[in-house]
Amino acid sequence: MIQRSTVEIIAAKRDGQELSADEIRRVIAGLASGSVADYQMTALLMATFFRGMSDAETVALTDAMLRSGAVLDLSSVPGVKVDKHSTGGVGDKVSIALAPLVAACGVPVPMVSGRGLGHTGGTLDKLEAIPGFRTDLSTADFVRIVREVGTCMIGQTKDVAPADKKIYALRDVTATVECIPLIVASILSKKLAEGIDALVLDVKVGSGAFMKDLDHARALATALVRVGTRAGKRVVARLTDMEAPLGVAVGNANETREALELLHGRGPADLREVTLALAAEMLALAGVTASLQNAIDSGAAVRVAEKMIEAQHGDPRVAADPSLLQVAPVRVEIPAERAGFVRRADALAIGLAAVAMGAGRSRAEDTVDPSVGIEVLAKPGDRVERGQPLAALHVKSRDPAIEERVRAAYAIDDAPPPARPLFLARITAEEAR
Amino acid sequence: MIQRSTVEIIAAKRDGQELSADEIRRVIAGLASGSVADYQMTALLMATFFRGMSDAETVALTDAMLRSGAVLDLSSVPGVKVDKHSTGGVGDKVSIALAPLVAACGVPVPMVSGRGLGHTGGTLDKLEAIPGFRTDLSTADFVRIVREVGTCMIGQTKDVAPADKKIYALRDVTATVECIPLIVASILSKKLAEGIDALVLDVKVGSGAFMKDLDHARALATALVRVGTRAGKRVVARLTDMEAPLGVAVGNANETREALELLHGRGPADLREVTLALAAEMLALAGVTASLQNAIDSGAAVRVAEKMIEAQHGDPRVAADPSLLQVAPVRVEIPAERAGFVRRADALAIGLAAVAMGAGRSRAEDTVDPSVGIEVLAKPGDRVERGQPLAALHVKSRDPAIEERVRAAYAIDDAPPPARPLFLARITAEEAR
Repeated sequence: MIQRSTVEIIAAKRDGQELSADEIRRVIAGLASGSVADYQMTALLMATFFRGMSDAETVALTDAMLRSGAVLDLSSVPGVKVDKHSTGGVGDKVSIALAPLVAACGVPVPMVSGRGLGHTGGTLDKLEAIPGFRTDLSTADFVRIVREVGTCMIGQTKDVAPADKKIYALRDVTATVECIPLIVASILSKKLAEGIDALVLDVKVGSGAFMKDLDHARALATALVRVGTRAGKRVVARLTDMEAPLGVAVGNANETREALELLHGRGPADLREVTLALAAEMLALAGVTASLQNAIDSGAAVRVAEKMIEAQHGDPRVAADPSLLQVAPVRVEIPAERAGFVRRADALAIGLAAVAMGAGRSRAEDTVDPSVGIEVLAKPGDRVERGQPLAALHVKSRDPAIEERVRAAYAIDDAPPPARPLFLARITAEEAR
Repeated sequence: MIQRSTVEIIAAKRDGQELSADEIRRVIAGLASGSVADYQMTALLMATFFRGMSDAETVALTDAMLRSGAVLDLSSVPGVKVDKHSTGGVGDKVSIALAPLVAACGVPVPMVSGRGLGHTGGTLDKLEAIPGFRTDLSTADFVRIVREVGTCMIGQTKDVAPADKKIYALRDVTATVECIPLIVASILSKKLAEGIDALVLDVKVGSGAFMKDLDHARALATALVRVGTRAGKRVVARLTDMEAPLGVAVGNANETREALELLHGRGPADLREVTLALAAEMLALAGVTASLQNAIDSGAAVRVAEKMIEAQHGDPRVAADPSLLQVAPVRVEIPAERAGFVRRADALAIGLAAVAMGAGRSRAEDTVDPSVGIEVLAKPGDRVERGQPLAALHVKSRDPAIEERVRAAYAIDDAPPPARPLFLARITAEEAR
């Protein structure tokens, strides 16, 4: 059979035909070699936006992208290796507590994380608020630390899924980001390149999330579970709320502090609930029946965090005493202008205010100030009195415009808003089929 | 109002929103300056394939593309300047007779034509079969010859609509050719850059045409007339048959000979009918009531052809004696294998056979042999006896594979096929609205 040319492959997708795994492989290889031009790839991406992809196509794309670079070999680490991926939100510091907690239960957690961009924060930026902490370790060090400590949290190395990096950069400037099979292949190609056996997905839903509504989030979560399962991994997804920030802290040092507090049995209830639920999913996928509460109460989780931080060149004392993480000196409260019930504490608006303060990035090349941040003191449903602080800013110097943005993120009504659950759905491999 | 960025413009088209004229202008300007990348343009083209364009958008795109380069100034030529554009077919040598004929009636015909590619021939290649004939004249010479002779036929200069050239090259490799608003803007931007007042469109329909079926052809013709009218020009379209080649000759020298024969009142009936009908449309758009038959009978049309060929450095004697145009020496007849009625003389197959003989191009850089060609001796509906020649090849040496291809282009049945009219529809500005 004669192979279809690139333009014939684009035409086939344009006309709603299914591409073969070999065709998808050739496109991804051609993009690297230059035989497929960027302007052909973006036409194919836009055609895919309109026509979608079958699961078989998405699996082939995931596989081709993950094989475009280095795939970690974790065979020297015994046990079922499990990671967690969040689609990103505001105040989402779950990973920092989750990884040591699950590792303390005997499940290895090799975790490759990202940096913040736009209103969503990034685990790497939060971890780097720990003095000395390094996320740019070699692959060999990463594997060794996972084996010896139980978990290690690094950034994506240049040689992991380079095709995904190139395609994502093209999608970003051609309005082809919002396409479920492309999102699925991008997420899974990077996660599967870690050499994991199982993956828990936390798909955020709401104003501060990539997916604003439940239907879209459910479609993404289902596709992730279905395609991940088809790629041979144990996968489960949770849909969790992101209308308001998760926990109290939004920033970097303050978020890491709040996450580490969890390991001492303290911290905000919503953050604890989400972290424990995702940790329980990880244990379940690994087939391990250990008590998370016991890992906290016994101090085992703190000790794993301590060892991980030390192995990654950070100051290990912050594990036992998270208050060592310094925040910016000026604290500015945003008072409620009236009494009532908080209807809205908009995650997107608060996330963007944090970026404006210097806690995040508008562009990938921006630098982050780890010390600045926001305390989200009132959440939707909370009863507040006039003058009571809704939020507090930790800054180096005041900026009325930013204070106004945080104020505008809140809405207060006479009546309490309808309750919105923290957990919106759970998608297992059986349900995703 | 804040201007939308390129990625926002792509997203808007992707989501089915209408782009403003200013946005379209900025994209086309940005493509030239480099601020809009090729890979953004192709994503926008694919989104346009799926979402289409309003007439206002298509007018803006046409205008932006024609203004991307030089626009001819024909103000020194008195009268209503009219051109004809064909969407291309096999044996379509209409322009070569039409331009001198209409000019002989007092209507200036500035004609910028193209070269053949694939199964369709090009007027420039056919004209260059005239010894010495040049189609690469300067703009100044072109304007002067139109003014002095009444018509001039040249190729597109590099500085006409460069944005169209760039976009067409991108469409060609990204499966975005078959998109009516993009086709309309491409055709009209080049034609309107000639500085014409009116345009007659010959939209070919059938196997040898770009548009294979009547519905698609009608949609294209209607869009061309509607958008051209909205751009301020007098426009009318005819839909004509291209299931079988037009006329008898398919090639270059033989086609030019056949076209020039028309000016002497000779030549195949179908070619004469199409040429006279399109010429009549041109006179009507110009508001001129002259007799085409008189221009032929009086020899005025031949004299214009003679002057045009002389002005373009060709041998003017071919106008009076078209038989001076030499064809290849070997003549090979393709006999009917049975008696009956010709059901099919497939234009596409015959056009591709002519390309294989060297009369056309598979790639733009191929050279053309003007002397080779095919005589299409039997047309659909014709009664043939066994052994009667269906076609004759003019070649330098025989090639059984090509002879077989021409044979395979024919089908003969016992019963006559349903009659297919030569003229399929006529679209005026009123009907296109």
